[in-house]
Amino acid sequence: MLSFLVALSISHQATSVGDTIIAIRKKGLTELGAYEMLNELTSKIGARVSGSPEAAKAVKWVHRQLELCGATNVSEVPCMVPHWTRGKGENAELNRNSQLSICALGGSVATPTKGIEAEVVEVKSLKEAEELGERGRGKIVFFNRPFDPTLPATFAAYGGANDQRVGGATAAAKSGAVAVLVRSMTLAKDDAPHTGAMRYGEGTKIPAAALGIQSAERLSAAIKKGKAKVKLTLNCQTLPDEPSANVIGEIKGSELPNEVIVMGGHLDSWDLGRGAHDDGAGVTQAMEALRLISQLGLKPKRTIRVVAWMNEENGGRGAKAYADYATHATEKHFAAMESDSGGFMPRAFGVSADKLDKVQPWLPMLRDFGIERFVAGGSDADNGPLGPLGAILFALQPENQRYFDYHHSRNDTIDKVNPRELEMGAMSMAAIAWLLSEQGDLLK
Amino acid sequence: MLSFLVALSISHQATSVGDTIIAIRKKGLTELGAYEMLNELTSKIGARVSGSPEAAKAVKWVHRQLELCGATNVSEVPCMVPHWTRGKGENAELNRNSQLSICALGGSVATPTKGIEAEVVEVKSLKEAEELGERGRGKIVFFNRPFDPTLPATFAAYGGANDQRVGGATAAAKSGAVAVLVRSMTLAKDDAPHTGAMRYGEGTKIPAAALGIQSAERLSAAIKKGKAKVKLTLNCQTLPDEPSANVIGEIKGSELPNEVIVMGGHLDSWDLGRGAHDDGAGVTQAMEALRLISQLGLKPKRTIRVVAWMNEENGGRGAKAYADYATHATEKHFAAMESDSGGFMPRAFGVSADKLDKVQPWLPMLRDFGIERFVAGGSDADNGPLGPLGAILFALQPENQRYFDYHHSRNDTIDKVNPRELEMGAMSMAAIAWLLSEQGDLLK
Repeated sequence: MLSFLVALSISHQATSVGDTIIAIRKKGLTELGAYEMLNELTSKIGARVSGSPEAAKAVKWVHRQLELCGATNVSEVPCMVPHWTRGKGENAELNRNSQLSICALGGSVATPTKGIEAEVVEVKSLKEAEELGERGRGKIVFFNRPFDPTLPATFAAYGGANDQRVGGATAAAKSGAVAVLVRSMTLAKDDAPHTGAMRYGEGTKIPAAALGIQSAERLSAAIKKGKAKVKLTLNCQTLPDEPSANVIGEIKGSELPNEVIVMGGHLDSWDLGRGAHDDGAGVTQAMEALRLISQLGLKPKRTIRVVAWMNEENGGRGAKAYADYATHATEKHFAAMESDSGGFMPRAFGVSADKLDKVQPWLPMLRDFGIERFVAGGSDADNGPLGPLGAILFALQPENQRYFDYHHSRNDTIDKVNPRELEMGAMSMAAIAWLLSEQGDLLK
Repeated sequence: MLSFLVALSISHQATSVGDTIIAIRKKGLTELGAYEMLNELTSKIGARVSGSPEAAKAVKWVHRQLELCGATNVSEVPCMVPHWTRGKGENAELNRNSQLSICALGGSVATPTKGIEAEVVEVKSLKEAEELGERGRGKIVFFNRPFDPTLPATFAAYGGANDQRVGGATAAAKSGAVAVLVRSMTLAKDDAPHTGAMRYGEGTKIPAAALGIQSAERLSAAIKKGKAKVKLTLNCQTLPDEPSANVIGEIKGSELPNEVIVMGGHLDSWDLGRGAHDDGAGVTQAMEALRLISQLGLKPKRTIRVVAWMNEENGGRGAKAYADYATHATEKHFAAMESDSGGFMPRAFGVSADKLDKVQPWLPMLRDFGIERFVAGGSDADNGPLGPLGAILFALQPENQRYFDYHHSRNDTIDKVNPRELEMGAMSMAAIAWLLSEQGDLLK
């Protein structure tokens, strides 16, 4: 008899939650608020590199938007961030007769003002660069290992190539190279160069730039012909750290206000393009999720909080600052959800492996938003540090085929975002936040 | 002991089929042949309305492409098709002071050369138009019922609105209207008008045009202000039927050559845009599927045949001609697969309901191509007529959110197609064709 009552009770609650999720869908698809916000962010502010004036404006903008969305306790969690700037006039010339399409990698040092001119040697791996020895001395080392196109998941292909971008300069410097060029991290076949973070290890810091794919192919062909000298000029610099902040805002829980469900994306972007998919999408989806819950008049049992993290791209200082804040708070972080894989049509949600079985009953309620399954995972760059504090981690996994066409390049603009696909992600986040708030006990 | 041997045998076969599908993926994602062909079709030939010189060129082009793909017995299945042309100078002017963005609906009659000028009355349904009575006499009737944005599936929203496009003219003519304007069949918010087939029933044939969404909103606002007179000029005409053809080509089955697996899309398109997603995608995916199988040196047990159907958009004459051909052939149509929902990332496959359980074991082999499930269905405009002949029907269901942004409009161009997403559809078709060929007995 007891089990019968429990079943009835769960069934009643499930129906009610299901109706709420239908209401979220109807309001979301009618209003498309995530797109409206993303359009404003990308057009009024544009790109927002950590430490830049645009990033500071974006902090203010999110603050105001969260208030408009119905959030309370809107505030900032401060952090110091690196401040790297591209400068003007970066340039690469092949054999003194043709331009290569390049961009400095984030964090790179500049070349001398007059540029660096050197013969180019092509390699396919960090190991090969380190083992060049004397053949690398005084040269520009060109990392040209492409994405493996045969992998269905583009993130896997990215994972198999981006060590060249991150670690290429340090590896090549070991052989005495004077600069590195890295094939852009993309499956597209255009010539837009893709920037992204690089890091220096021990040793000499040499300049590092990404090459557009067509330029990479052209350079490789020139090397095969036996003649490839490139003159590279980069004017980037790293300025002193700047004060910045994560922005947070919430709907206070009515029954369990000290159990916090966090959802968000990162507010900083690279300087090329407008940071639409990476990750204006995630920030505006999280704000929209809160707006939907707020404007539907829903009163969550647990606190639902948006976090717009700062400095995901080149430091993770915002994630660290928020995790520090969470560590010292009296409240408990019950769950943390991140969207940082683009504003494409949702397909799945990653979730902490130990909760994978327990969230399965939620799946049918998420199908309208394109969520086909939960998969073990859920930890991403910004929510990850909240895992050790006990938060159940969730990460939106949208369709990924087009992501690296735009990622970190001038092509990451609002016209690549479909309003309904973006909203589907926002609504799936709202639905999961609501499920966590109302049925979170089922996950314990 | 027998069951043990059977299990071993199936297991061996399954491994082998699985390896073949992996080979299809590696070749397909490396070469991206579907995109290469679609790029050529849309750039060299462009739009290809039934009966047009471009459609005739497209027939020749597919013939040659199929040979290049490795097909044998490449030939044409002739059919007569309607020949409607838009003509030049179509135009609509609101209150003699602003242009509305319009296009004639396919099949519409023209206005008089000097145009039709009349007051506009707005309705939301065929019934409302029919019941206008005297209030409709001499008027232009404006059908302005939008897609229901709250439906997650855009095809469902389309299904709920396109009676206005197809039947609006006939309904309005019953009330004495002189022309109709129809809100475009789209969820996009731009001003590109979307054409598509309309049909006349009994009664007077009055001209019919689609309005871009912004124009529809503007016209509706003018009507609310009490003043909306439109001057509409259409110069379209229906010419005598033209001879045309479906194009077919195949890989002959090595063991069961008389059991035919058909796969295809339709070769005709509307005249706006380039017919990239609708349905150059389906035709080039089917050709690519055959190319992959052929160039991998695979020898299917059953015959695998591509059909590029003609005249899906405004008559279905090609589908009828091919079904007639199939009816009289000595061979049996074992299965018929269609791709006519755009070249977006695959999500599901429709399949004849009575085979739904039996195809489930194939699903894990299709996941890399984005296929999440089989659903009951599989019948589309061109493969549908083969169902009554005993063919198991399959229809590719790609991601659908963006389809009606482009469908039948000037925006249906190659730049809206992602090469990998298109190829995923082609590879899923190749894989299913191969499974049908090698394991088709499991479906009997």
